[in-house]
Amino acid sequence: MSLPSNIVPVPLPKAHRLLNHGPTVLVSSAHGGRRNVMAAAWNMTLDFEPPKIAVVIDRSTYTRELLEASGEFVIGLPSRAMAATVVKVGSTTGHDGDKFAELGLESYPAAKVAAPLVAGCVAWLECRLIPEPHIQQRYDLFLGEVIAAWAEAEVFPDSHWQFPSPAQRTIHHVAGGHFFVTGEAFEVPGRS
Amino acid sequence: MSLPSNIVPVPLPKAHRLLNHGPTVLVSSAHGGRRNVMAAAWNMTLDFEPPKIAVVIDRSTYTRELLEASGEFVIGLPSRAMAATVVKVGSTTGHDGDKFAELGLESYPAAKVAAPLVAGCVAWLECRLIPEPHIQQRYDLFLGEVIAAWAEAEVFPDSHWQFPSPAQRTIHHVAGGHFFVTGEAFEVPGRS
Repeated sequence: MSLPSNIVPVPLPKAHRLLNHGPTVLVSSAHGGRRNVMAAAWNMTLDFEPPKIAVVIDRSTYTRELLEASGEFVIGLPSRAMAATVVKVGSTTGHDGDKFAELGLESYPAAKVAAPLVAGCVAWLECRLIPEPHIQQRYDLFLGEVIAAWAEAEVFPDSHWQFPSPAQRTIHHVAGGHFFVTGEAFEVPGRS
Repeated sequence: MSLPSNIVPVPLPKAHRLLNHGPTVLVSSAHGGRRNVMAAAWNMTLDFEPPKIAVVIDRSTYTRELLEASGEFVIGLPSRAMAATVVKVGSTTGHDGDKFAELGLESYPAAKVAAPLVAGCVAWLECRLIPEPHIQQRYDLFLGEVIAAWAEAEVFPDSHWQFPSPAQRTIHHVAGGHFFVTGEAFEVPGRS
């Protein structure tokens, strides 16, 4: 599928806002005509500009094999509406066949990397691996530079989270099938 | 202050659940009779057992100076009721004087490290630095092994988040004075 018109670029200096609140994400990768996707609660922003992120990717995953071969990956932020899919993505392996076909996942082509944007997410970060072999091997810890970012226009207008409906809210994994939805926004006076 | 009786130990194999949902935290450290505390949205779980965490700590912070000197730190999870304090902690420096005294912060002694537990948080992770000088220098990225953990009994009973009141919910920083509160819990059927 081609990218729908309601999905708009996020300026790179604002990309850190996409992971700042700690949502659970999907990590997708592709190499040599193969692709895969996994779920990852263990992720964080690492820097503002150029934007960088960190994510833990277990050594048993097929996503990691494709990521290490290609040096690229995409972080997608699934919505509340996608939570059951996130659990399925996180409890099946891509070693045995194409997980997208198996789970009926649609995708869009990314702009700068081979890894796909998983449809149904509300935002995406296209990343180039920052190779750090020691921490990859020792801690399953992967660093990436964000080289393009996208969001649903009505969910992240002008680079601010809005969440017009409960189903579009991002999610936060706890354990097993347990999640929290991103809750109400609030502001502490005296800071803009 | 000594540790109140409603603050109970969290078994280390369950400690990963404290950061899994991506809350914003306070990082405290102490060395040679001095102490400090900072705010950190950029943190994540790194491993289950032994439990490990990762956190980004800017090179300009006094917290980092004390952390690097002592090899220890504490991660505290502030509640919604503490959000204004989190912003103050994040916008003042400990280089000029004791931030606890300046901001009227109380603390409890930790069990295994010199860094204090900041009162008002709903959970804490006592950490021993895992020295990785290359990523500390290059990315401000610090890894720690969790060697003790604590939570308010009514907020994390039997190692499950409950959040009996809105004021006790954990928080997720976006930018400036903007936050989300941790929202409603939900469960995806078919997984326990």
